[in-house]
Amino acid sequence: MQKRIEVCLTPALLHLYDISNSIVVVIDILRATSSMVYGIDNGAAAIIPVAHVEDCLNYSDSGYLLAAERDGEVVKGYDFGNSPFSYQKEKVAGKTIVLTTTNGTKALHMARAKASQVVIGSFLNLQALCDWLREQNKSVLLLCAGWKDQFNLEDTLFAGAVVTALRKDFTHFDDSSVAAEDLYQVARQDLRAYLHKSSHSHRLAQLNIEEDVKFCLQLNICQAIPVLSGDSLIALTVTKKIHIG
Amino acid sequence: MQKRIEVCLTPALLHLYDISNSIVVVIDILRATSSMVYGIDNGAAAIIPVAHVEDCLNYSDSGYLLAAERDGEVVKGYDFGNSPFSYQKEKVAGKTIVLTTTNGTKALHMARAKASQVVIGSFLNLQALCDWLREQNKSVLLLCAGWKDQFNLEDTLFAGAVVTALRKDFTHFDDSSVAAEDLYQVARQDLRAYLHKSSHSHRLAQLNIEEDVKFCLQLNICQAIPVLSGDSLIALTVTKKIHIG
Repeated sequence: MQKRIEVCLTPALLHLYDISNSIVVVIDILRATSSMVYGIDNGAAAIIPVAHVEDCLNYSDSGYLLAAERDGEVVKGYDFGNSPFSYQKEKVAGKTIVLTTTNGTKALHMARAKASQVVIGSFLNLQALCDWLREQNKSVLLLCAGWKDQFNLEDTLFAGAVVTALRKDFTHFDDSSVAAEDLYQVARQDLRAYLHKSSHSHRLAQLNIEEDVKFCLQLNICQAIPVLSGDSLIALTVTKKIHIG
Repeated sequence: MQKRIEVCLTPALLHLYDISNSIVVVIDILRATSSMVYGIDNGAAAIIPVAHVEDCLNYSDSGYLLAAERDGEVVKGYDFGNSPFSYQKEKVAGKTIVLTTTNGTKALHMARAKASQVVIGSFLNLQALCDWLREQNKSVLLLCAGWKDQFNLEDTLFAGAVVTALRKDFTHFDDSSVAAEDLYQVARQDLRAYLHKSSHSHRLAQLNIEEDVKFCLQLNICQAIPVLSGDSLIALTVTKKIHIG
C-alpha cells in the first residue's frame, strides 16, 4: 500500500483532500491541541470539543469543566480557556472538559465529518504520536488549524516535525509536506526564536502568554494521544506490536 | 504608511485578504506567468487571459494567436499552450494572444475583481518587478496560482524570492511570507534540484517539459512587467525616478 503524508496548511483547504481512509492529525500548537494533549495526559476522562461558546452552556449543570477561548482570551464566566496551565492534574484528573476555541475545535469538527480517524498532535506528544502513526496501515493528513483560516508558522512547523520523523516510513509526500519539513529543519534548533518572526507571536505577546508559548514548544513530555471517539476526545489505547526475532 | 507584503499560498485563500489598495502579483511559474512575461518581453502587443477554453473561440476569426492549456498539455486545435518556447519573438511580436491555462488565468481573474492593480511575476523578470514594487507606495500581495487550489513549491519559492528582495523596504510580513522567504533561502542555490522534491515536478516530468522547467527558472532575462489593463495584459511603462544628488 502507498502510505501518503499530506499537510493541509489551513482548514480552508481541507475540501481538497480525500481523507475517507486517512488518519487526520489536528494541530493547533498555540494552544488548543497542546492543552488537549496535556489535559488527557493528566488524566482528564474526556474533552468534548464544541463549535460555539453557547454550546458549552448545554453542559453547565452537569459537573463538567467549561473552557472557552476566543481571540486568545478566556471568555468571561468560564472556568478557563486554552492555556495549558489550566489543564494540570489537580484540576482535570477524572473530569470531563467541554472546550471551544477559535481555531482548533473548528478544525476538529471539519475533520470528524470525513476522516477515518482523528487524533490530536502537539510538540508535547510528538514522539508518541509518530511511533503510533508509523505502525498504522493508513495514510496521514496533518491538518493545521491556522489562525482564522490563515496559514501559520507554528502549526506548519509541527507538521514538518512529524514529516521529518516519518520520512522513511511513508512513500508519498505532497508539496506542502516538503515545505513543512524544510521549514522545521530551519527552525528546529530554536523553535521559540524562530516563532518570534511570526505574526501570531506578536499577537500572543500582547496577550502575555509567553510562558504558555514556552510550555507548548516542549518536546515529548506527554505520552497520551487524544483520539476522537464519538463526540469526545479520549486517550488512545496504544497496543505495541511485539517483534519476536 | 505601513507597507505590507503578504503571500497568498493558493487562490482558495484569496478571500482572506483585503487587496483593494494592494498591488497583486500573480505567480504561476510552471508555466503560465513565465510565458506571459516572456511573450510581452518579446513584443507581443497584448495577452488576453480568458477563463475557459471555449472563450478562446470568440477570438478565432480575428487574427489572434490562440493558446490553450489544460492539465499541462496543449488543447487540441490550438496554436499553442503555455510552453515559453511558443512565445518567442518571431512568433508573437506585434501579435495579441488569447490564453487560457489551468491555474494562472483563473488566479488572474480572481485578483482582477478586487485588486488595486494586477501585475505578472516570474523568475524571468524578478529584478525588474522588485525594482518597480519598491518604488510604489502600496502594499503587495503575492498570489500563488498553485495547482488546482493546492499549495505548490515553485510558486511559493518565487514569492520568497520577492520577499527576500523587498525585505528592507517593507515593514509588515505575514507568516506565509516568512515561510516563503525561508524556503527560498533553502532552495536558491539550485532551484531545479530543489523542485525535484515537488509533486508538480513529477507530474511535469511525465509531460516531457524538463526544458521548459529549466527555462522558467532562469533569473532576470526579461525586463517587461505585464500589467492588467482592462481585459488585457500589456507591458507596464516603468518611469524611473531620477535621484539628483
